Amino acid sequence: MKALLTLGACALCLASLTAHAQETDTEKAAARDVIRKMADLEQSLDVPGLVAKLTGADAGRDAVVARTKELMDKELLTMADDIATHPEIGFTEKRSVAKLTDYLKAHNFDVEIGVANLPTAFVAKYRGSSGAPNLGVVVEYDALRGTSGPFHGDQHSAQGPVGLAAAVAMSEFLSRTHTPGSVTVFGTPGEEMMPPVAKADMHAAHAFDGMDIIVRSHSSSVTSRPAPGFGSCCMNIDGVKYTFSGAPAHQLTSWNGRNALEGVIHLFNNIDAVRSSIRPEARIQGVITDGGAAPNVTPDRTAADFYIRYPDEVYLAQVTEFVDNAAKAAALATGTKVKIDHYGKDRDGVNEGALAELSFAYMKKYGATNVQAQPGKPQGFEETGTVSRDIPGIGISAQSSLAPNHTYEMNADNLKEIGHTGFTIDAETMTAILFDFATHPEYRVAVKKEFDGLKALFGEYQAALKKTYTSPVVSEPK
Amino acid sequence: MKALLTLGACALCLASLTAHAQETDTEKAAARDVIRKMADLEQSLDVPGLVAKLTGADAGRDAVVARTKELMDKELLTMADDIATHPEIGFTEKRSVAKLTDYLKAHNFDVEIGVANLPTAFVAKYRGSSGAPNLGVVVEYDALRGTSGPFHGDQHSAQGPVGLAAAVAMSEFLSRTHTPGSVTVFGTPGEEMMPPVAKADMHAAHAFDGMDIIVRSHSSSVTSRPAPGFGSCCMNIDGVKYTFSGAPAHQLTSWNGRNALEGVIHLFNNIDAVRSSIRPEARIQGVITDGGAAPNVTPDRTAADFYIRYPDEVYLAQVTEFVDNAAKAAALATGTKVKIDHYGKDRDGVNEGALAELSFAYMKKYGATNVQAQPGKPQGFEETGTVSRDIPGIGISAQSSLAPNHTYEMNADNLKEIGHTGFTIDAETMTAILFDFATHPEYRVAVKKEFDGLKALFGEYQAALKKTYTSPVVSEPK
Amino acid sequence: MKALLTLGACALCLASLTAHAQETDTEKAAARDVIRKMADLEQSLDVPGLVAKLTGADAGRDAVVARTKELMDKELLTMADDIATHPEIGFTEKRSVAKLTDYLKAHNFDVEIGVANLPTAFVAKYRGSSGAPNLGVVVEYDALRGTSGPFHGDQHSAQGPVGLAAAVAMSEFLSRTHTPGSVTVFGTPGEEMMPPVAKADMHAAHAFDGMDIIVRSHSSSVTSRPAPGFGSCCMNIDGVKYTFSGAPAHQLTSWNGRNALEGVIHLFNNIDAVRSSIRPEARIQGVITDGGAAPNVTPDRTAADFYIRYPDEVYLAQVTEFVDNAAKAAALATGTKVKIDHYGKDRDGVNEGALAELSFAYMKKYGATNVQAQPGKPQGFEETGTVSRDIPGIGISAQSSLAPNHTYEMNADNLKEIGHTGFTIDAETMTAILFDFATHPEYRVAVKKEFDGLKALFGEYQAALKKTYTSPVVSEPK
Amino acid sequence: MKALLTLGACALCLASLTAHAQETDTEKAAARDVIRKMADLEQSLDVPGLVAKLTGADAGRDAVVARTKELMDKELLTMADDIATHPEIGFTEKRSVAKLTDYLKAHNFDVEIGVANLPTAFVAKYRGSSGAPNLGVVVEYDALRGTSGPFHGDQHSAQGPVGLAAAVAMSEFLSRTHTPGSVTVFGTPGEEMMPPVAKADMHAAHAFDGMDIIVRSHSSSVTSRPAPGFGSCCMNIDGVKYTFSGAPAHQLTSWNGRNALEGVIHLFNNIDAVRSSIRPEARIQGVITDGGAAPNVTPDRTAADFYIRYPDEVYLAQVTEFVDNAAKAAALATGTKVKIDHYGKDRDGVNEGALAELSFAYMKKYGATNVQAQPGKPQGFEETGTVSRDIPGIGISAQSSLAPNHTYEMNADNLKEIGHTGFTIDAETMTAILFDFATHPEYRVAVKKEFDGLKALFGEYQAALKKTYTSPVVSEPK
Repeated sequence: MKALLTLGACALCLASLTAHAQETDTEKAAARDVIRKMADLEQSLDVPGLVAKLTGADAGRDAVVARTKELMDKELLTMADDIATHPEIGFTEKRSVAKLTDYLKAHNFDVEIGVANLPTAFVAKYRGSSGAPNLGVVVEYDALRGTSGPFHGDQHSAQGPVGLAAAVAMSEFLSRTHTPGSVTVFGTPGEEMMPPVAKADMHAAHAFDGMDIIVRSHSSSVTSRPAPGFGSCCMNIDGVKYTFSGAPAHQLTSWNGRNALEGVIHLFNNIDAVRSSIRPEARIQGVITDGGAAPNVTPDRTAADFYIRYPDEVYLAQVTEFVDNAAKAAALATGTKVKIDHYGKDRDGVNEGALAELSFAYMKKYGATNVQAQPGKPQGFEETGTVSRDIPGIGISAQSSLAPNHTYEMNADNLKEIGHTGFTIDAETMTAILFDFATHPEYRVAVKKEFDGLKALFGEYQAALKKTYTSPVVSEPK
Repeated sequence: MKALLTLGACALCLASLTAHAQETDTEKAAARDVIRKMADLEQSLDVPGLVAKLTGADAGRDAVVARTKELMDKELLTMADDIATHPEIGFTEKRSVAKLTDYLKAHNFDVEIGVANLPTAFVAKYRGSSGAPNLGVVVEYDALRGTSGPFHGDQHSAQGPVGLAAAVAMSEFLSRTHTPGSVTVFGTPGEEMMPPVAKADMHAAHAFDGMDIIVRSHSSSVTSRPAPGFGSCCMNIDGVKYTFSGAPAHQLTSWNGRNALEGVIHLFNNIDAVRSSIRPEARIQGVITDGGAAPNVTPDRTAADFYIRYPDEVYLAQVTEFVDNAAKAAALATGTKVKIDHYGKDRDGVNEGALAELSFAYMKKYGATNVQAQPGKPQGFEETGTVSRDIPGIGISAQSSLAPNHTYEMNADNLKEIGHTGFTIDAETMTAILFDFATHPEYRVAVKKEFDGLKALFGEYQAALKKTYTSPVVSEPK
Repeated sequence: MKALLTLGACALCLASLTAHAQETDTEKAAARDVIRKMADLEQSLDVPGLVAKLTGADAGRDAVVARTKELMDKELLTMADDIATHPEIGFTEKRSVAKLTDYLKAHNFDVEIGVANLPTAFVAKYRGSSGAPNLGVVVEYDALRGTSGPFHGDQHSAQGPVGLAAAVAMSEFLSRTHTPGSVTVFGTPGEEMMPPVAKADMHAAHAFDGMDIIVRSHSSSVTSRPAPGFGSCCMNIDGVKYTFSGAPAHQLTSWNGRNALEGVIHLFNNIDAVRSSIRPEARIQGVITDGGAAPNVTPDRTAADFYIRYPDEVYLAQVTEFVDNAAKAAALATGTKVKIDHYGKDRDGVNEGALAELSFAYMKKYGATNVQAQPGKPQGFEETGTVSRDIPGIGISAQSSLAPNHTYEMNADNLKEIGHTGFTIDAETMTAILFDFATHPEYRVAVKKEFDGLKALFGEYQAALKKTYTSPVVSEPK
Repeated sequence: MKALLTLGACALCLASLTAHAQETDTEKAAARDVIRKMADLEQSLDVPGLVAKLTGADAGRDAVVARTKELMDKELLTMADDIATHPEIGFTEKRSVAKLTDYLKAHNFDVEIGVANLPTAFVAKYRGSSGAPNLGVVVEYDALRGTSGPFHGDQHSAQGPVGLAAAVAMSEFLSRTHTPGSVTVFGTPGEEMMPPVAKADMHAAHAFDGMDIIVRSHSSSVTSRPAPGFGSCCMNIDGVKYTFSGAPAHQLTSWNGRNALEGVIHLFNNIDAVRSSIRPEARIQGVITDGGAAPNVTPDRTAADFYIRYPDEVYLAQVTEFVDNAAKAAALATGTKVKIDHYGKDRDGVNEGALAELSFAYMKKYGATNVQAQPGKPQGFEETGTVSRDIPGIGISAQSSLAPNHTYEMNADNLKEIGHTGFTIDAETMTAILFDFATHPEYRVAVKKEFDGLKALFGEYQAALKKTYTSPVVSEPK
């Protein structure tokens, strides 16, 4: 569904990459050029060679990884269980943050709670750090909203303990061995909710500045890694809220009012009117969050919340303009007023094969199950696409459940062996990657080269799309 | 706005009675016949003569009225202030009901709390009662929902104390003088809300059975009385709720779902489509009470709440059928399902001039202010029209505020002299009417005759309308 | 349905005059003031006295009326039959115009065919005229569009011969007796169609300038006259055409186009959306005159034609603004463009009781049948309201058919005795009025005084309405 | 855009075949099985070997082909020019049919004009025919509708002469050499229009029964052939007309009518409402062919014409049901009635590689220009898909213009060398294929085997799709 651009084992995929968003020859040519250059870039890196070398025997690495496992077994799986059984939804995760930051403080981290106006965000820096490379660990802790209360059906409960295990083990190693390098843990709240878009806001507040790599783990029912390239799981998204105001009146003399419910209804009608005038890959869906108070009073306030999606952000801008115009037209037609709030956005992220393939190799090495041979869609290590465009990194996904994400079954697996095993492998893999990144300068160079190359090609692709997506010429009515 | 049919001082009104709902000659003839017969009926009653005789000097009446005033001054205005400052919205009026029923119990009434599945409804019968005539007093006590909490902007807070003063004074009188007659107080909750429609439910549960007259008071910024006839303040109303179900799906594959929000939106669109095919006196307005949960999931449940109004209930049935068809069509078009719940209705009530003109004369006698010379629209003594069609009665409205109903200003007047004065006049007038009704058999006969006559004419008018409101013939498409 | 303001026998009507458009006290007061002043004006004129005096014995008048009858009997009923059996629809009435103007030329009229860019309009002035008063006769001749071709179901076929009879007889009289006065016949095409609005265009081109009175006849199934005042049969009307342009595309790639059919459809939807926000007396109806060419090409041109009506032109402006905004919003929402063409309008006309009551008296005197005792709604002597606001006049309607207007039955009556008799009475009445106007200076003064007075009151009423019809205040969305 | 299933040089295409219509794993599996079996079938036929053998030296074939060229040069290019300069639109092609059938009669064909109720369809059988194989030649002759009259912008003008040249040359050869075989020419009118769908109607009337092969030519700006498999250029199509009837009423009392324009408008609105509930490959587009007569009368008849398209006919049935329900719901909501007329359909056709590759080889051999190396989408030899599912055949497309189809430029090329050259190559290729088919039994067997195999796989694919396209379960509203 995504206009993802990827490279890797999936040679046959190349043709289909452009199947969805690209219709015209110009569009296809734009994509083709970028794909070719991307193939050249990957070839030049020899990722398989790098991975083979790094995953070879290394006693230093093995010791740090063993310390990670020890922390998990002794303390942090218990903490994961505890958070799993005390779920808190986004932006209210006070107890969870306290648990995590208390642990970090106890392990020699300076902690700042409350970042970028987010009270449950935090940044924790190891006190004994010594300069670059700057190693970042992102952890999450918000629960899902279930019909009978919050629950950890996406296993964010374990992300904190996993990240803490790797961060503490690596910090101890760097400090003990006087290896240059600093570890920072980032607590990012409310992954499941927007607004606010926590990571984007933290990034805008420069919280991640200076990081050379960022790692994160996430629950999964398969062990997999993304292909190198740029993309996202679920298209580029604009989150927009439309609020209409009218004038109240008694139902018996409704002409003395202006009906804000008609306003919001015709927002939906106007969108439906142009669905055929928008490329079929678009996904526009909304809900009415305020549909009026009482039937005997003309509604004077209503609101709707929309997610607007398209495979690329260039045409997405056109789609969102259609929706904004639908709202303005609805207000004009109904004599109401509308406020448009672009409250959040998700964008394509960038993924480096040098990091992804290494994570894949380590997960297999540490015993990960249900391994998916082919790389998945390219996507950044975090869901907003904003951080992964600026800083290289990798999200680690060893199997930690038998059930799909966002299920009560996955929540139950939090406390079972499949969960505990997967979380531990995530922590070990995270540690190994950070170890290699900190101790192998040539690996850092390769990651940086790939990241810079992909970022440049992403810009090139977007520039080509901008030229391509022209608007039809509407002549004057006669 | 109402197809009210009335008689009285407003001779010029006759022509305009039929101005709104009646368009065709047939319709006008139907109304004309009824108006003529109604004029004959009123002529035969000599209401002015009755009123003049009853309001003349009567020491017995004056004593009971004085006792009413004493109760108000000593205890019940204080209770009114207390209820006004402890507002409770419909169907939660526990504290208010306790205050009222405690007082009634203390004054020798048997009290049953919880009637017709309404926990805050009550029926209180005087223990010393002795047969017919059965005198009913309706009291209300629910507050309005304000943006900053409940408030008594419609002064229902005083209705209980007013009714209690009259009920206690009359009971004492009947008992003391061994005059035949029984007093019952009806506590009817949630006047401002439906569903449930409290009085209709209580009536269906036979709570009011056997009453010969029912009285009630209501706050007002003018001192007025309705014209004899049938009608309502605000048209006949059907309250209907439409609930749509669809099938959920992720936004990315919305074709695997069915969108219940589109269902409810097209309910509104379908209604708008036929507004020109419905007589312009109709008032159809709704709100969306459930507009979907989250923009990334195809909404699978939505709901709307409608008030459908028309001057008469005969054509109203056609209007409501239009709206029901709009809902069924919306479901058919969107592949969703709809449940239709006709949860409540208000209908034309019947008003007897013999009671209304007497109440008007007494209110003036006891010093009511801002007197409106012309009678207002005919309407029953309660807002549902169901009770007043079966039992004669009168609603008493002496000025009790300088502000319109449903305002914070009227709430403030609860505690001021204008409120206290108006409530006291209401109580005195209510007492005087009940006294006359209990002690003057010829007055009871006149009220009964008028009630029976109007009821018959109402049926005649509705039968005539049924013949008149035909549907257009739609030919087969070719 | 009209906010007509009238005076006359219908004293009871006064109250109901304001029943429809006026809701607020301010509105009612505005109307009440004007009605009172209008009553004073009419009182001051003593129209009944005037009529009694003028319709008394007058040999001179009788001779001219006899000449009119002679012309009808000998030649002009034959011409009416001929035009009735050669129907021509609006703006194509070449043959009819030739018949009429040939006759006028033969009777000493100078004829100019083609006025105000209307090829079948004409102005014919009697050659022997001598100054004021200037007597205008309006004639029409367009047929209706029937499903099986044009037909004279509104009997415009006879209007020309009727007007010619009166014009020729009066011209001969004025010339022969050297009475000051001039006769002009105005041929006005296409009464049944707009655009163009023939009389408005001719008036704008100054064709009617200088007339002191204008007379016209019209077919009817009753003999009637309008009440004095201002109004129209069928509300004030704006005729507006909306043309949408989009961008064509093949159906398979419709996103390369912009769909003009969606544009015009949402014009209708947007209007439906605000029907409850517009006073219920409004009537807005349209048709889609161009709905796209072929289903496999995205429609790039569509059009709709609307009649927008309201009882007064002040609020009508608000209604038309709603509809224009509906069109602009539809274009904005669909990415199309719209052209708005306000192609025509009908407005309230002014009617003088001094002329109407005289015409009524003469029609009865000359034997008119099916006489309607009460005056009808006030309305000008022509349907656009533009000429009758500037020049006094009267439309004459003796019964000329047993059938309603615009029927095949009325067409058949063209050739029957009922038609011939009615047309002849129209011609006689027209002659008698022109005779009285030309020969009684005091009557001219009365007509002028009434006309000026009504015109001033009309302005006053409109000014009051302008203050009254405020727009609701819509607050900023929060 | 099509769910075409193909085989051939385009190995990479295999993956993308299923990219559009197949979303679920079940769908993909269904397609994968069929593709694999199709590959096996094609492998087993050794089409390249067959083609190489047949296109080798053959003096007999060369003589017949030479005769074809002679007929073109001497007479039939002149006839093509004549038809090109006397364009006639679909179902009115009397002159063109006369030209073609006169020629056929003169060359010993029995001609029947008027087939399947189509006055300009014809069937012409060679008098000297002798049994199987039955060789069919389809010719077309309808012009396009241009803004300034009919024109041959799709070069159907030449199809008749091309087909006649091949038919006459082959008939002469079979007859002269007593080779078994019969030639029949089918004149099929109105290719550009539906309804009626000429070829489907002729097929239903058994006009094509008994044919062993059918050939046809078509203009093109490239020389190409379709891949083997099943598909169509432009999706499966349902053509449906919706006619609404209401009840007329005057605009002033529109509630006495039912508005058929609201009916047809809400057909469109209802379709727009479910666009997100239908798979995005669908294409639904309509026009309003009757949008009401006049704005002052409630429209009582309206109509719309739709093309409904989907890549496969299985899901198309669901899409068309959505549209039919949209119409029924629009009627229900607006109190109107609707008539639904499924007037025509286009379906996937079947294409045999054994015929397509041979045609491609001969076109190149005879000098065709602008050769497209890759086979195009699979599609039958005629546009309805009904005939090509029952009878093997091939459409021949040598370059005959520099311009795209349906252009004035392609019309101009009718008379130029590029047109004449292309038409001649079409005729030569058609002759060579018919010669090989008639004279090489093993080739007939191969074509038959491929046809039967593809047809069976087509059925298998459709059966698999039927299992796959389930409808969502909508629960009862609560």
